[in-house]
Amino acid sequence: MSGGTLRGGYLGQDDEKGTLYGVGVGPGAPDLITLRAARLIEGAAVIAYPTLAGADSFARSIAAGLIPAGAEEIVMDVPMTTDRAPAQAAYDAGAARIAAALDRGQDVVCLCEGDPFFYGSFMYLFARLAGTYRCDVVPGVTSVTACAARAGRPLVARNERLTVLPGPLPEAELRDRIAGAESVAIMKVGRHLPKVRAVIADLGLTGAATYVERASLPDEVVLPLADAPDTAPYFSMILLTKGADPWL
Amino acid sequence: MSGGTLRGGYLGQDDEKGTLYGVGVGPGAPDLITLRAARLIEGAAVIAYPTLAGADSFARSIAAGLIPAGAEEIVMDVPMTTDRAPAQAAYDAGAARIAAALDRGQDVVCLCEGDPFFYGSFMYLFARLAGTYRCDVVPGVTSVTACAARAGRPLVARNERLTVLPGPLPEAELRDRIAGAESVAIMKVGRHLPKVRAVIADLGLTGAATYVERASLPDEVVLPLADAPDTAPYFSMILLTKGADPWL
Repeated sequence: MSGGTLRGGYLGQDDEKGTLYGVGVGPGAPDLITLRAARLIEGAAVIAYPTLAGADSFARSIAAGLIPAGAEEIVMDVPMTTDRAPAQAAYDAGAARIAAALDRGQDVVCLCEGDPFFYGSFMYLFARLAGTYRCDVVPGVTSVTACAARAGRPLVARNERLTVLPGPLPEAELRDRIAGAESVAIMKVGRHLPKVRAVIADLGLTGAATYVERASLPDEVVLPLADAPDTAPYFSMILLTKGADPWL
Repeated sequence: MSGGTLRGGYLGQDDEKGTLYGVGVGPGAPDLITLRAARLIEGAAVIAYPTLAGADSFARSIAAGLIPAGAEEIVMDVPMTTDRAPAQAAYDAGAARIAAALDRGQDVVCLCEGDPFFYGSFMYLFARLAGTYRCDVVPGVTSVTACAARAGRPLVARNERLTVLPGPLPEAELRDRIAGAESVAIMKVGRHLPKVRAVIADLGLTGAATYVERASLPDEVVLPLADAPDTAPYFSMILLTKGADPWL
């Protein structure tokens, strides 16, 4: 069952077509990119990545030092709307441009912050293209373990459980999920910080909670949750390590 | 709050002492090591890692091509017993040898498969040494995202939840946790495979389950859970992606 390609549905062996690589570039520090991802990016003729409402791509900024001069860049600008249709149209158009490069026999390296299959927008391209083209996903370091490393907080040992929750979940669900969990990583905290902080305080867990913002980057912030600012950027996380016992 | 060291308790700035690096080497393929980890291993004068009951170290095998000839290797052999005391003694003795090297001013690179703070034995050394010595944790690619990549199964998108459960958990707890979850990664399946498979079948989720063994290694196995062998190695995982919707 080994080999370089995935079972995304594509069963062909059409060697005239290129391969789509979904490449995790890790949490932010350029040297937390894997050797495999670095090799693929350095050798890429075509790079692809989404941007949000015209903003710069975080994934591209992580990999910037590795992208060859002259590489073609396929940028999918995704509008910020509550309606899904405009974003779907952006991924449809991006997938069509990627498909055209693959049909020409070029490989395409799609850059993803963290890991492509862990809250990564790459999965929208994978869903559109993996049934037709060779597709290889290169896993990356996620922000969860990067935040734990920077906070000096072991996540899980032995038979402990880890729960990953997105901060935008409704307050009641967050409360229920955190109450029943051991270690918890709350992602995408951003503007949901006051709500998440109130839930954790209600549960009496503030002392076990660490706030981490932009882990591994030069402007990283690591603070006890009680000292966290009221406004948080999208790339922020709260770690609750009430279960983790780092002593054997 | 940026900088190279962690808040593990150590507040000193004694530059005559070495730094302990807990270095994640990823899930198995040597090129899934990060650039930072590779640089640290290539430059290491002292390498440390545990072994289990005299067996070879998986972490060392992943990094073998990067370890300098002549590096000192501190091997902590951990006996396999139900009593914790002999294992604690092995980590105590290993920590003392590492401390001696740090006191001599040498850095020590401790190798950890996957990520040091995600079910990694490094946390036992961290608990013993981070209060006294500079300690820096280098996060690594975990087996969770490596398995998802190889299985071609996106883990979580948007506001989905991910639950990580160890296979040794009791059957009733596994059932409750899986029933209440969206995407699930069940780690350390090994000899617990029949129990885990029965729980998943009872919940009617077999069709959403993928079995992955030794992800990213040449002898990797990826199978629908229904087709998985009855005996699984320790480094095996079951992914349940009932929640993941890779379409935007």
